[in-house]
Amino acid sequence: MSKASGRLEFWYEFSSTYSYIAAMRIERLAEAAGVTIDWRPFLLGPIFQAQGWNTSPFNLYPAKGRYMVREMERLAAEHGVPFRMPAVFPQNSLQAARLALAGAEAGWIVPFTKAVYLAEFRDGADISDRTVLEGVLRGLKLDPAPVFARIATADIKERLKEQTDLAQESGIFGAPSFIVGDELFWGNDRLEQALELAKGR
Amino acid sequence: MSKASGRLEFWYEFSSTYSYIAAMRIERLAEAAGVTIDWRPFLLGPIFQAQGWNTSPFNLYPAKGRYMVREMERLAAEHGVPFRMPAVFPQNSLQAARLALAGAEAGWIVPFTKAVYLAEFRDGADISDRTVLEGVLRGLKLDPAPVFARIATADIKERLKEQTDLAQESGIFGAPSFIVGDELFWGNDRLEQALELAKGR
Repeated sequence: MSKASGRLEFWYEFSSTYSYIAAMRIERLAEAAGVTIDWRPFLLGPIFQAQGWNTSPFNLYPAKGRYMVREMERLAAEHGVPFRMPAVFPQNSLQAARLALAGAEAGWIVPFTKAVYLAEFRDGADISDRTVLEGVLRGLKLDPAPVFARIATADIKERLKEQTDLAQESGIFGAPSFIVGDELFWGNDRLEQALELAKGR
Repeated sequence: MSKASGRLEFWYEFSSTYSYIAAMRIERLAEAAGVTIDWRPFLLGPIFQAQGWNTSPFNLYPAKGRYMVREMERLAAEHGVPFRMPAVFPQNSLQAARLALAGAEAGWIVPFTKAVYLAEFRDGADISDRTVLEGVLRGLKLDPAPVFARIATADIKERLKEQTDLAQESGIFGAPSFIVGDELFWGNDRLEQALELAKGR
Protein backbone atom coordinates (compact mmCIF):
# COMPACT_ATOMS: atom_id res chain seq x y z
CA MET A 1 0.00 0.00 0.00
CA SER A 2 1.37 3.38 -0.97
CA LYS A 3 2.00 5.93 1.71
CA ALA A 4 0.41 9.34 1.16
CA SER A 5 3.11 11.88 0.47
CA GLY A 6 0.87 14.79 -0.38
CA ARG A 7 -2.60 16.24 -0.06
CA LEU A 8 -5.08 17.46 -2.61
CA GLU A 9 -8.32 19.36 -1.96
CA PHE A 10 -11.14 18.13 -4.16
CA TRP A 11 -13.78 20.86 -4.43
CA TYR A 12 -17.03 19.59 -5.88
CA GLU A 13 -20.62 20.64 -6.43
CA PHE A 14 -23.33 17.98 -6.37
CA SER A 15 -25.13 19.40 -9.41
CA SER A 16 -21.98 19.36 -11.56
CA THR A 17 -21.61 16.67 -14.21
CA TYR A 18 -17.83 17.05 -14.45
CA SER A 19 -17.57 16.83 -10.64
CA TYR A 20 -19.40 13.51 -10.87
CA ILE A 21 -16.85 12.05 -13.30
CA ALA A 22 -14.01 13.29 -11.08
CA ALA A 23 -15.62 11.83 -7.93
CA MET A 24 -15.93 8.42 -9.56
CA ARG A 25 -12.26 8.20 -10.52
CA ILE A 26 -10.35 10.23 -7.94
CA GLU A 27 -9.89 7.49 -5.33
CA ARG A 28 -8.15 5.06 -7.66
CA LEU A 29 -5.85 7.76 -9.07
CA ALA A 30 -5.07 9.20 -5.63
CA GLU A 31 -4.26 5.75 -4.26
CA ALA A 32 -1.89 5.11 -7.19
CA ALA A 33 -0.23 8.50 -6.63
CA GLY A 34 -0.06 8.06 -2.85
CA VAL A 35 -1.99 11.30 -2.33
CA THR A 36 -4.59 11.96 0.38
CA ILE A 37 -7.81 13.58 -0.82
CA ASP A 38 -9.62 16.20 1.20
CA TRP A 39 -13.25 16.05 0.00
CA ARG A 40 -14.72 19.58 -0.10
CA PRO A 41 -18.36 19.94 -1.12
CA PHE A 42 -19.43 23.50 -1.81
CA LEU A 43 -22.16 25.43 -3.62
CA LEU A 44 -21.52 26.96 -7.02
CA GLY A 45 -24.83 28.83 -6.98
CA PRO A 46 -23.63 31.80 -4.88
CA ILE A 47 -20.42 32.01 -6.93
CA PHE A 48 -22.37 31.99 -10.20
CA GLN A 49 -24.77 34.59 -8.78
CA ALA A 50 -21.84 36.84 -7.94
CA GLN A 51 -20.91 36.57 -11.65
CA GLY A 52 -24.43 37.57 -12.63
CA TRP A 53 -25.61 34.07 -13.57
CA ASN A 54 -28.93 32.76 -12.29
CA THR A 55 -28.44 29.20 -13.52
CA SER A 56 -25.77 26.91 -14.94
CA PRO A 57 -23.69 28.28 -17.84
CA PHE A 58 -24.74 25.10 -19.64
CA ASN A 59 -28.29 26.46 -19.62
CA LEU A 60 -27.33 30.08 -20.23
CA TYR A 61 -25.22 29.15 -23.26
CA PRO A 62 -26.99 26.39 -25.21
CA ALA A 63 -24.03 25.52 -27.49
CA LYS A 64 -21.93 24.96 -24.39
CA GLY A 65 -24.70 22.87 -22.86
CA ARG A 66 -25.04 20.64 -25.92
CA TYR A 67 -21.29 20.19 -25.99
CA MET A 68 -21.20 19.24 -22.30
CA VAL A 69 -23.80 16.51 -22.79
CA ARG A 70 -21.88 15.04 -25.74
CA GLU A 71 -18.62 15.25 -23.83
CA MET A 72 -20.21 13.52 -20.83
CA GLU A 73 -21.13 10.61 -23.11
CA ARG A 74 -17.52 10.42 -24.33
CA LEU A 75 -16.07 10.73 -20.80
CA ALA A 76 -18.48 8.16 -19.39
CA ALA A 77 -17.44 5.69 -22.09
CA GLU A 78 -13.75 6.48 -21.59
CA HIS A 79 -13.84 6.03 -17.82
CA GLY A 80 -16.45 3.28 -17.68
CA VAL A 81 -18.81 5.44 -15.63
CA PRO A 82 -22.59 5.28 -16.24
CA PHE A 83 -24.18 8.57 -17.25
CA ARG A 84 -27.49 10.12 -18.13
CA MET A 85 -28.72 13.67 -17.87
CA PRO A 86 -31.37 14.02 -15.16
CA ALA A 87 -34.69 15.58 -16.18
CA VAL A 88 -33.91 18.63 -14.04
CA PHE A 89 -30.54 20.33 -14.51
CA PRO A 90 -28.88 21.81 -12.60
CA GLN A 91 -30.35 20.30 -9.46
CA ASN A 92 -30.66 22.08 -6.14
CA SER A 93 -27.76 20.59 -4.22
CA LEU A 94 -28.16 22.42 -0.90
CA GLN A 95 -29.40 19.47 1.19
CA ALA A 96 -26.92 17.05 -0.37
CA ALA A 97 -24.03 19.39 0.38
CA ARG A 98 -25.14 19.85 4.00
CA LEU A 99 -25.48 16.09 4.38
CA ALA A 100 -21.98 15.62 2.98
CA LEU A 101 -20.63 17.95 5.68
CA ALA A 102 -22.42 15.86 8.31
CA GLY A 103 -20.78 12.87 6.65
CA ALA A 104 -17.38 14.52 6.93
CA GLU A 105 -17.87 14.68 10.71
CA ALA A 106 -19.04 11.10 10.91
CA GLY A 107 -16.66 9.47 8.41
CA TRP A 108 -19.02 8.61 5.56
CA ILE A 109 -18.56 11.59 3.23
CA VAL A 110 -16.84 9.59 0.48
CA PRO A 111 -19.38 6.77 0.00
CA PHE A 112 -22.20 9.29 0.48
CA THR A 113 -20.82 11.60 -2.20
CA LYS A 114 -20.50 8.81 -4.73
CA ALA A 115 -23.95 7.43 -3.93
CA VAL A 116 -25.58 10.84 -4.39
CA TYR A 117 -23.83 11.30 -7.74
CA LEU A 118 -24.93 7.86 -8.92
CA ALA A 119 -28.53 8.56 -7.88
CA GLU A 120 -28.40 11.78 -9.88
CA PHE A 121 -26.38 10.95 -12.98
CA ARG A 122 -26.81 7.19 -13.29
CA ASP A 123 -30.42 6.86 -12.10
CA GLY A 124 -31.67 10.35 -13.04
CA ALA A 125 -33.12 10.95 -9.57
CA ASP A 126 -33.79 14.40 -8.12
CA ILE A 127 -31.31 14.97 -5.30
CA SER A 128 -33.29 17.92 -3.94
CA ASP A 129 -35.97 15.36 -3.02
CA ARG A 130 -35.61 14.35 0.62
CA THR A 131 -36.84 10.81 -0.04
CA VAL A 132 -34.05 10.33 -2.59
CA LEU A 133 -31.46 11.49 -0.04
CA GLU A 134 -33.03 9.28 2.63
CA GLY A 135 -32.70 6.35 0.25
CA VAL A 136 -29.02 7.16 -0.26
CA LEU A 137 -28.44 7.27 3.51
CA ARG A 138 -30.27 3.99 4.03
CA GLY A 139 -28.14 2.45 1.30
CA LEU A 140 -25.16 3.30 3.51
CA LYS A 141 -26.89 1.67 6.53
CA LEU A 142 -27.50 5.06 8.11
CA ASP A 143 -30.69 6.14 9.86
CA PRO A 144 -31.87 9.26 7.99
CA ALA A 145 -33.73 10.93 10.89
CA PRO A 146 -30.76 11.90 13.10
CA VAL A 147 -28.71 12.90 10.06
CA PHE A 148 -31.43 15.24 8.84
CA ALA A 149 -31.72 16.57 12.38
CA ARG A 150 -28.00 17.28 12.34
CA ILE A 151 -28.11 19.25 9.07
CA ALA A 152 -31.00 21.36 10.37
CA THR A 153 -28.61 22.91 12.90
CA ALA A 154 -27.16 26.37 12.43
CA ASP A 155 -23.74 24.83 12.82
CA ILE A 156 -23.87 22.76 9.61
CA LYS A 157 -25.62 25.52 7.65
CA GLU A 158 -22.93 27.98 8.67
CA ARG A 159 -20.17 25.52 7.85
CA LEU A 160 -21.42 25.10 4.27
CA LYS A 161 -21.61 28.84 3.89
CA GLU A 162 -18.03 29.18 5.15
CA GLN A 163 -16.85 26.42 2.83
CA THR A 164 -18.48 28.16 -0.14
CA ASP A 165 -16.97 31.51 0.89
CA LEU A 166 -13.59 29.84 1.17
CA ALA A 167 -13.98 28.38 -2.32
CA GLN A 168 -14.64 31.84 -3.70
CA GLU A 169 -11.74 33.38 -1.78
CA SER A 170 -9.49 30.63 -3.14
CA GLY A 171 -10.29 31.77 -6.68
CA ILE A 172 -12.64 28.88 -7.47
CA PHE A 173 -15.14 29.74 -10.22
CA GLY A 174 -16.28 26.30 -11.37
CA ALA A 175 -16.36 22.65 -10.40
CA PRO A 176 -14.64 20.39 -9.94
CA SER A 177 -11.57 22.30 -8.78
CA PHE A 178 -8.45 20.93 -7.20
CA ILE A 179 -6.11 22.80 -4.90
CA VAL A 180 -2.57 21.72 -4.09
CA GLY A 181 -0.81 24.24 -1.88
CA ASP A 182 -1.41 27.54 -3.66
CA GLU A 183 -2.09 26.02 -7.07
CA LEU A 184 -5.63 25.88 -8.39
CA PHE A 185 -6.70 23.47 -11.12
CA TRP A 186 -10.13 23.69 -12.72
CA GLY A 187 -11.85 20.79 -14.39
CA ASN A 188 -12.02 17.01 -14.28
CA ASP A 189 -9.37 16.91 -17.01
CA ARG A 190 -6.85 18.61 -14.70
CA LEU A 191 -7.05 15.91 -12.03
CA GLU A 192 -3.99 14.00 -13.20
CA GLN A 193 -1.91 17.19 -13.35
CA ALA A 194 -3.01 18.23 -9.86
CA LEU A 195 -2.17 14.79 -8.46
CA GLU A 196 1.24 14.93 -10.10
CA LEU A 197 1.95 18.17 -8.26
CA ALA A 198 0.53 16.83 -4.96
CA LYS A 199 2.78 13.78 -5.23
CA GLY A 200 5.91 15.86 -5.00
CA ARG A 201 4.81 17.64 -1.81
CA MET B 1 7.25 9.77 -43.00
CA SER B 2 3.77 8.86 -41.87
CA LYS B 3 0.93 8.93 -44.36
CA ALA B 4 -2.09 10.98 -43.32
CA SER B 5 -5.00 8.67 -42.58
CA GLY B 6 -7.40 11.25 -41.25
CA ARG B 7 -8.26 14.93 -41.13
CA LEU B 8 -8.83 17.31 -38.29
CA GLU B 9 -10.18 20.86 -38.47
CA PHE B 10 -8.30 23.21 -36.16
CA TRP B 11 -10.51 26.24 -35.42
CA TYR B 12 -8.57 29.07 -33.85
CA GLU B 13 -8.94 32.71 -32.89
CA PHE B 14 -5.88 34.95 -33.01
CA SER B 15 -6.71 36.65 -29.71
CA SER B 16 -7.03 33.34 -27.83
CA THR B 17 -4.24 32.29 -25.49
CA TYR B 18 -5.23 28.61 -25.53
CA SER B 19 -5.37 28.68 -29.35
CA TYR B 20 -1.78 29.92 -29.30
CA ILE B 21 -0.60 26.95 -27.26
CA ALA B 22 -2.48 24.58 -29.57
CA ALA B 23 -1.04 26.22 -32.70
CA MET B 24 2.49 25.81 -31.39
CA ARG B 25 2.15 22.09 -30.75
CA ILE B 26 -0.38 20.79 -33.27
CA GLU B 27 2.01 20.15 -36.18
CA ARG B 28 4.29 17.82 -34.25
CA LEU B 29 1.39 15.86 -32.78
CA ALA B 30 -0.45 15.66 -36.10
CA GLU B 31 2.68 14.44 -37.88
CA ALA B 32 3.15 11.73 -35.25
CA ALA B 33 -0.52 10.71 -35.61
CA GLY B 34 -0.43 10.83 -39.41
CA VAL B 35 -3.33 13.30 -39.43
CA THR B 36 -3.75 16.23 -41.84
CA ILE B 37 -4.68 19.55 -40.21
CA ASP B 38 -7.12 21.94 -41.82
CA TRP B 39 -6.25 25.36 -40.33
CA ARG B 40 -9.44 27.38 -39.77
CA PRO B 41 -9.07 30.90 -38.41
CA PHE B 42 -12.35 32.48 -37.30
CA LEU B 43 -13.61 35.29 -35.07
CA LEU B 44 -14.94 34.58 -31.60
CA GLY B 45 -16.21 38.15 -31.20
CA PRO B 46 -19.50 37.64 -33.08
CA ILE B 47 -20.09 34.33 -31.28
CA PHE B 48 -19.46 35.93 -27.89
CA GLN B 49 -21.71 38.85 -28.84
CA ALA B 50 -24.51 36.42 -29.69
CA GLN B 51 -24.09 35.10 -26.13
CA GLY B 52 -24.38 38.63 -24.75
CA TRP B 53 -20.67 39.12 -24.06
CA ASN B 54 -18.93 42.28 -25.22
CA THR B 55 -15.40 41.10 -24.38
CA SER B 56 -13.51 37.95 -23.41
CA PRO B 57 -14.96 35.86 -20.57
CA PHE B 58 -11.51 36.19 -19.01
CA ASN B 59 -12.23 39.90 -18.62
CA LEU B 60 -15.90 39.49 -17.73
CA TYR B 61 -15.10 36.97 -14.98
CA PRO B 62 -11.92 38.07 -13.17
CA ALA B 63 -11.41 34.80 -11.24
CA LYS B 64 -11.47 32.94 -14.56
CA GLY B 65 -9.07 35.47 -16.05
CA ARG B 66 -6.58 35.15 -13.19
CA TYR B 67 -6.78 31.37 -13.48
CA MET B 68 -6.16 31.50 -17.24
CA VAL B 69 -2.99 33.56 -16.82
CA ARG B 70 -1.64 31.15 -14.20
CA GLU B 71 -2.56 28.16 -16.34
CA MET B 72 -0.84 29.74 -19.34
CA GLU B 73 2.35 29.93 -17.29
CA ARG B 74 2.03 26.24 -16.42
CA LEU B 75 1.19 25.22 -20.00
CA ALA B 76 4.00 27.29 -21.45
CA ALA B 77 6.47 25.60 -19.11
CA GLU B 78 5.02 22.16 -19.83
CA HIS B 79 5.18 22.55 -23.61
CA GLY B 80 8.30 24.68 -23.80
CA VAL B 81 6.42 27.56 -25.43
CA PRO B 82 7.28 31.17 -24.54
CA PHE B 83 4.41 33.18 -23.08
CA ARG B 84 3.55 36.59 -21.77
CA MET B 85 0.24 38.42 -21.57
CA PRO B 86 0.14 41.33 -24.02
CA ALA B 87 -0.75 44.75 -22.57
CA VAL B 88 -4.05 44.68 -24.46
CA PHE B 89 -6.26 41.62 -24.10
CA PRO B 90 -8.16 40.41 -25.98
CA GLN B 91 -6.69 41.91 -29.13
CA ASN B 92 -8.65 42.84 -32.21
CA SER B 93 -7.86 39.94 -34.51
CA LEU B 94 -9.86 40.94 -37.59
CA GLN B 95 -6.93 41.89 -39.85
CA ALA B 96 -4.84 38.90 -38.74
CA ALA B 97 -7.71 36.52 -39.51
CA ARG B 98 -8.26 38.03 -42.95
CA LEU B 99 -4.54 37.80 -43.67
CA ALA B 100 -4.57 34.15 -42.62
CA LEU B 101 -7.31 33.46 -45.18
CA ALA B 102 -5.16 35.14 -47.84
CA GLY B 103 -2.38 32.88 -46.63
CA ALA B 104 -4.63 29.83 -47.03
CA GLU B 105 -5.01 30.71 -50.74
CA ALA B 106 -1.31 31.29 -51.16
CA GLY B 107 0.09 28.46 -49.06
CA TRP B 108 1.59 30.35 -46.11
CA ILE B 109 -1.22 30.17 -43.55
CA VAL B 110 0.67 27.88 -41.16
CA PRO B 111 3.91 29.86 -40.75
CA PHE B 112 1.89 33.09 -40.74
CA THR B 113 -0.39 31.85 -37.97
CA LYS B 114 2.50 30.82 -35.77
CA ALA B 115 4.39 34.06 -36.41
CA VAL B 116 1.35 36.17 -35.48
CA TYR B 117 0.88 34.21 -32.27
CA LEU B 118 4.54 34.62 -31.35
CA ALA B 119 4.39 38.36 -32.01
CA GLU B 120 1.37 38.57 -29.72
CA PHE B 121 2.11 36.14 -26.88
CA ARG B 122 5.90 35.92 -26.91
CA ASP B 123 6.74 39.53 -27.84
CA GLY B 124 3.61 41.23 -26.46
CA ALA B 125 2.98 43.11 -29.72
CA ASP B 126 -0.42 44.46 -30.75
CA ILE B 127 -1.64 42.40 -33.71
CA SER B 128 -4.30 44.94 -34.60
CA ASP B 129 -1.41 47.27 -35.54
CA ARG B 130 -0.79 47.09 -39.29
CA THR B 131 2.94 47.66 -38.88
CA VAL B 132 3.16 44.58 -36.63
CA LEU B 133 1.37 42.48 -39.25
CA GLU B 134 3.58 43.92 -42.00
CA GLY B 135 6.58 42.88 -39.95
CA VAL B 136 5.20 39.35 -39.66
CA LEU B 137 4.69 39.17 -43.44
CA ARG B 138 8.17 40.48 -44.14
CA GLY B 139 9.56 37.88 -41.76
CA LEU B 140 8.01 35.30 -44.09
CA LYS B 141 9.66 37.03 -47.12
CA LEU B 142 6.30 38.34 -48.29
CA ASP B 143 5.65 41.82 -49.67
CA PRO B 144 2.95 43.31 -47.39
CA ALA B 145 1.39 45.71 -49.95
CA PRO B 146 -0.24 43.16 -52.30
CA VAL B 147 -1.34 41.01 -49.35
CA PHE B 148 -3.08 43.94 -47.68
CA ALA B 149 -4.65 44.80 -51.04
CA ARG B 150 -5.95 41.24 -51.23
CA ILE B 151 -7.59 41.37 -47.79
CA ALA B 152 -9.28 44.65 -48.63
CA THR B 153 -11.41 42.82 -51.19
CA ALA B 154 -15.04 41.92 -50.49
CA ASP B 155 -14.14 38.34 -51.32
CA ILE B 156 -11.80 37.83 -48.32
CA LYS B 157 -14.04 39.80 -45.98
CA GLU B 158 -17.01 37.66 -46.96
CA ARG B 159 -15.02 34.47 -46.61
CA LEU B 160 -14.07 35.28 -43.01
CA LYS B 161 -17.69 36.04 -42.26
CA GLU B 162 -18.74 32.70 -43.75
CA GLN B 163 -16.04 30.86 -41.82
CA THR B 164 -17.22 32.47 -38.57
CA ASP B 165 -20.86 31.63 -39.37
CA LEU B 166 -19.82 28.05 -40.10
CA ALA B 167 -18.03 27.86 -36.75
CA GLN B 168 -21.19 28.95 -34.99
CA GLU B 169 -23.38 26.54 -36.99
CA SER B 170 -20.95 23.75 -36.09
CA GLY B 171 -21.63 24.38 -32.40
CA ILE B 172 -18.32 26.13 -31.71
CA PHE B 173 -18.50 28.46 -28.70
CA GLY B 174 -14.83 28.88 -27.79
CA ALA B 175 -11.31 28.47 -29.12
CA PRO B 176 -9.44 26.44 -29.94
CA SER B 177 -11.94 23.88 -31.15
CA PHE B 178 -11.25 20.74 -33.12
CA ILE B 179 -13.69 18.98 -35.41
CA VAL B 180 -13.30 15.40 -36.60
CA GLY B 181 -16.27 14.32 -38.70
CA ASP B 182 -19.26 15.26 -36.55
CA GLU B 183 -17.36 15.33 -33.28
CA LEU B 184 -16.51 18.67 -31.67
CA PHE B 185 -13.73 19.06 -29.12
CA TRP B 186 -13.23 22.30 -27.22
CA GLY B 187 -9.93 23.36 -25.70
CA ASN B 188 -6.22 22.92 -26.18
CA ASP B 189 -6.35 20.03 -23.71
CA ARG B 190 -8.64 18.07 -26.04
CA LEU B 191 -6.16 18.08 -28.94
CA GLU B 192 -4.72 14.64 -28.22
CA GLN B 193 -8.20 13.11 -27.93
CA ALA B 194 -9.33 14.70 -31.19
CA LEU B 195 -6.20 13.45 -32.99
CA GLU B 196 -6.79 9.96 -31.63
CA LEU B 197 -10.24 9.97 -33.20
CA ALA B 198 -8.97 11.47 -36.47
CA LYS B 199 -6.33 8.75 -36.70
CA GLY B 200 -8.93 6.02 -37.00
CA ARG B 201 -10.74 7.72 -39.88
